[in-house]
Amino acid sequence: MSHAVAEIIPPPAAPDAGPTSFHPVERQVYRDGMARLAAAVNIITSTGEDGWCGFTASAVSSVTDSPPTLLVCVNRTVQAHKAISTSGVLCVNTVAGPQEGLAMTFAGAGGNKDMKQRFAGGSWTELVTGAPVLAGSIVSFDCRVTNVSTIGTHDVFFCEVLAVCGGEGATGGEALVYFDRKFHAVS
Amino acid sequence: MSHAVAEIIPPPAAPDAGPTSFHPVERQVYRDGMARLAAAVNIITSTGEDGWCGFTASAVSSVTDSPPTLLVCVNRTVQAHKAISTSGVLCVNTVAGPQEGLAMTFAGAGGNKDMKQRFAGGSWTELVTGAPVLAGSIVSFDCRVTNVSTIGTHDVFFCEVLAVCGGEGATGGEALVYFDRKFHAVS
Repeated sequence: MSHAVAEIIPPPAAPDAGPTSFHPVERQVYRDGMARLAAAVNIITSTGEDGWCGFTASAVSSVTDSPPTLLVCVNRTVQAHKAISTSGVLCVNTVAGPQEGLAMTFAGAGGNKDMKQRFAGGSWTELVTGAPVLAGSIVSFDCRVTNVSTIGTHDVFFCEVLAVCGGEGATGGEALVYFDRKFHAVS
Repeated sequence: MSHAVAEIIPPPAAPDAGPTSFHPVERQVYRDGMARLAAAVNIITSTGEDGWCGFTASAVSSVTDSPPTLLVCVNRTVQAHKAISTSGVLCVNTVAGPQEGLAMTFAGAGGNKDMKQRFAGGSWTELVTGAPVLAGSIVSFDCRVTNVSTIGTHDVFFCEVLAVCGGEGATGGEALVYFDRKFHAVS
């Protein structure tokens, strides 16, 4: 089939080809919605020029097992952001029920930003990267950052999992879940 | 200070400058570890050439409230992947405790891949994008895809939230959480 004028073929729809005439929701509406998305509580640790650092986060997700990859969303204003960016390593420590107090400490409860004080509340080891691994966690993932995507206020760190502590063969224990702005123990 | 030979200054550490002499964990070790990371259960829906489609997923995370953005990790072999890529819209329906059966259906329990049959098990509405919104969900986020990152077998869809149903002012109800390869109701 031949035409003097080329057929007009619409370009394949781009991934961002969704409705553009709508506006995003207000921040508070988004936050109220997210309070309803239950999530595990994690202490994300890293090691930087000033030593160990860490903070509490729920924005962690599995990505793929080929290659074994998870992601962590980190506000760029968080103290540990620089250490993670510089060292390229982090450990996701998924918090157990009895570690709620420690999770609060690493969330900055009482305005506590002193890292030595934060770490004093737990027992820590290391696996392969040197990022602190929390003893008694439900599971810990020792990781190397392989990619970063910047979205608004946050960086999304894609991380290859180099070692897992507490996963293989482990069951039971109480996981700590955040839902409706409260902690819940799940077992 | 001047030298005939330039000082050797190490380049700034790249985000992927972590240990390279280590290897990722085996797939099964990763999967066993991830079974210990509790997560909300969600039915991700979209609308494509063949009508509504959906699947159950736990790999959903908040990214930032500025602009209101979440992410969903989707295996590229999943039926709904094409619809999401083409339409650029999806809805994250966070499942309530009593909707465990529906979550199993959308997870393909019994090999059920027929979308009409899947959707027949629930009540659905629409908000702004046309992606199906599950009545009685804990919360639903109607979204437009704004970015995609490809990591191994999966695409990570970054989505701007255009409407929320069930968030504002809502509390209580039972959230459904997946932990230790079992469903748990959290309230």
